[in-house]
Amino acid sequence: MQLLKEKIEQEGKVLSEKVLKVDTFLNHQIDPKLMVEIGKEFARLFREENITKVVTIESSGIAPAVMTALKLEVPVVFARKHQSLTLTENLYRSKVYSFTKQVSSEIAVSGDFVTADDHVLLIDDFLANGQAMLGLMDIVEQAGATIGGVGIVIEKGFQEGGAVIRDKGVRVESLAIIDNMSPDHITFQ
Amino acid sequence: MQLLKEKIEQEGKVLSEKVLKVDTFLNHQIDPKLMVEIGKEFARLFREENITKVVTIESSGIAPAVMTALKLEVPVVFARKHQSLTLTENLYRSKVYSFTKQVSSEIAVSGDFVTADDHVLLIDDFLANGQAMLGLMDIVEQAGATIGGVGIVIEKGFQEGGAVIRDKGVRVESLAIIDNMSPDHITFQ
Repeated sequence: MQLLKEKIEQEGKVLSEKVLKVDTFLNHQIDPKLMVEIGKEFARLFREENITKVVTIESSGIAPAVMTALKLEVPVVFARKHQSLTLTENLYRSKVYSFTKQVSSEIAVSGDFVTADDHVLLIDDFLANGQAMLGLMDIVEQAGATIGGVGIVIEKGFQEGGAVIRDKGVRVESLAIIDNMSPDHITFQ
Repeated sequence: MQLLKEKIEQEGKVLSEKVLKVDTFLNHQIDPKLMVEIGKEFARLFREENITKVVTIESSGIAPAVMTALKLEVPVVFARKHQSLTLTENLYRSKVYSFTKQVSSEIAVSGDFVTADDHVLLIDDFLANGQAMLGLMDIVEQAGATIGGVGIVIEKGFQEGGAVIRDKGVRVESLAIIDNMSPDHITFQ
């Protein structure tokens, strides 16, 4: 997606070999018009899949996922990373290790909202080592739902996540795949 | 907002005198079309304010805030509740006590995205005791920005948050204000 790649080139900050900061439009500040375009693109790519639900993880996945769900005319569910008193029963849970934060955490989705009738599109902001996406896939499988595909805003093509998930036979569409990056230059696939 | 009130009546679950669960369309599963309508309504209410930025808190504030920002044609910033390795410098911080979760936590916004030039619209999903909103207001004031208003999806009119914030001279627009509620009935203002 050309618009997204230009935005990454113009505003992304490469903090290290593996860390790309896109806080100006995706992870802290959000560009709503760009989210609309991202939603349109994911909806176009997965239109034929007859998706019944979009599933993502809080917090940075929410904006692109909501825009995608709007275009596909289905609800979106965001997996919770932190416990909430009003969300305690009938939960599917999965452990996710974050290399960025260096902690293991649990994500959870209510069985009320992902069921065996669902054909799910999984959306996330980044795909790097794939741990978060594997956790989401685990939850969808626990619910007996099927996976129609995975939509990623920015894939770090030099990390293993993309290969791990594609090797499971799941269709992954990433709107920008970074082959390598340095503070001076970002190379897209 | 009639559409929202109907949705609360049809799908909201009153778990106790003070706890309303709206996980089917706002806090866990999200109804994207309803978010569009909420965004339109907040944009209509605050159109004359010349808002330069919408600010909210992760995670449930993000969807209504993004739709509002889209209509107002400004960026949205979500305050982070949890530390991230890629978000460590130049932060405004505030302590927020959550009565729901019974813990005190810190919220943070980067000084890169809220500045003395901004006239901010603050958006959140719920207003109850007002602690989260007071934390956001504290951050906006630290940044030297001005507050154009507060937009709340659901205000618990029987808790003190609305009065606390209005008493500071800030305009608060809540799309649904609940006067009282029980498992059988919800009364709106």
